[in-house]
Amino acid sequence: MGMDATSLPTRQRILYATAELFRRQGYTGTGLKQIVAEAQAPFGSVYHHFPGGKQELADEVIHAGGAFFQALVSAVYDAEPNPEASIRAVFEGAAETLRATDFQDACPIATVALEVASTNEPLRLVTAEVFERWTQALSDRLGDRDRAQAVLAALEGAFILARAQRSIEPMLAAGRMAADYAGRS
Amino acid sequence: MGMDATSLPTRQRILYATAELFRRQGYTGTGLKQIVAEAQAPFGSVYHHFPGGKQELADEVIHAGGAFFQALVSAVYDAEPNPEASIRAVFEGAAETLRATDFQDACPIATVALEVASTNEPLRLVTAEVFERWTQALSDRLGDRDRAQAVLAALEGAFILARAQRSIEPMLAAGRMAADYAGRS
Repeated sequence: MGMDATSLPTRQRILYATAELFRRQGYTGTGLKQIVAEAQAPFGSVYHHFPGGKQELADEVIHAGGAFFQALVSAVYDAEPNPEASIRAVFEGAAETLRATDFQDACPIATVALEVASTNEPLRLVTAEVFERWTQALSDRLGDRDRAQAVLAALEGAFILARAQRSIEPMLAAGRMAADYAGRS
Repeated sequence: MGMDATSLPTRQRILYATAELFRRQGYTGTGLKQIVAEAQAPFGSVYHHFPGGKQELADEVIHAGGAFFQALVSAVYDAEPNPEASIRAVFEGAAETLRATDFQDACPIATVALEVASTNEPLRLVTAEVFERWTQALSDRLGDRDRAQAVLAALEGAFILARAQRSIEPMLAAGRMAADYAGRS
């Protein structure tokens, strides 16, 4: 988990462990037993902190992961002087993170989003809400919703290809297209 | 399953049922019991036809789904006179399919690809192989591997956003960017 997780309160440890497990192996493949083991928390603590169980935990983790990822991407974006450089930096940063984490750290919600899209309507709505916030944040910066959706699609798809192929090539290729598109007047 | 499945041989029925279940709910969430129920096949027939069980079934379904999707996309692509029109037609066709199937029919391997990327190395390699074939087929047409990867990323990511948001808007937006990029000299 990249930090001394045991110093955090139990609730936080459970959230971090769940986020990491969902990102790497998805919602369906992650059980509460594995979550408490990773979080070094007693089993009963999950239902104490999340009475709705895995569904409630997923709701909160998707929201939190969405906010975290948005803050991260926004910081990278806003450090550059123009949309083209900003988008390039976002894709290059994603490529660097993929390589540094053995292609495990990618979009925090994509795996879950695909798993629940046709099987779990309440969680589908949560993923839709997060994607809408990202689209909105990018629309504000690019001044164009259509371009924001296209760029976000390229980023999400590049995560899939890069993770499957264990290569940053698709991320950099998608970044060149997206930066070019964002920079055109 | 969109056809009179019971008229097919058992092996085929199992493959079609598995493909549909993986596409809609993923690899982890699909059990052999559900597969035989959907396929209207006796339980033992799975291990008779696929001694390696779910893993062997997944290997074959990913390959078959990959070949099917490639043939479908190639047919749409090749019916148009130039790369820009071809790519536009591919994304518009994907949008139409999403809408017609209540946002269930999308990329046949994306969900499984994300689920297995960090958890099941043999299946990750199968998804990587399929993505590589698609990239190759598109590279041949666009005359440029970099553009092929970028366009494929946009298509894959648009499937995620469209399914999560139950909207064809991201697919059409991604299609405009991709067509524009494919058509530039």
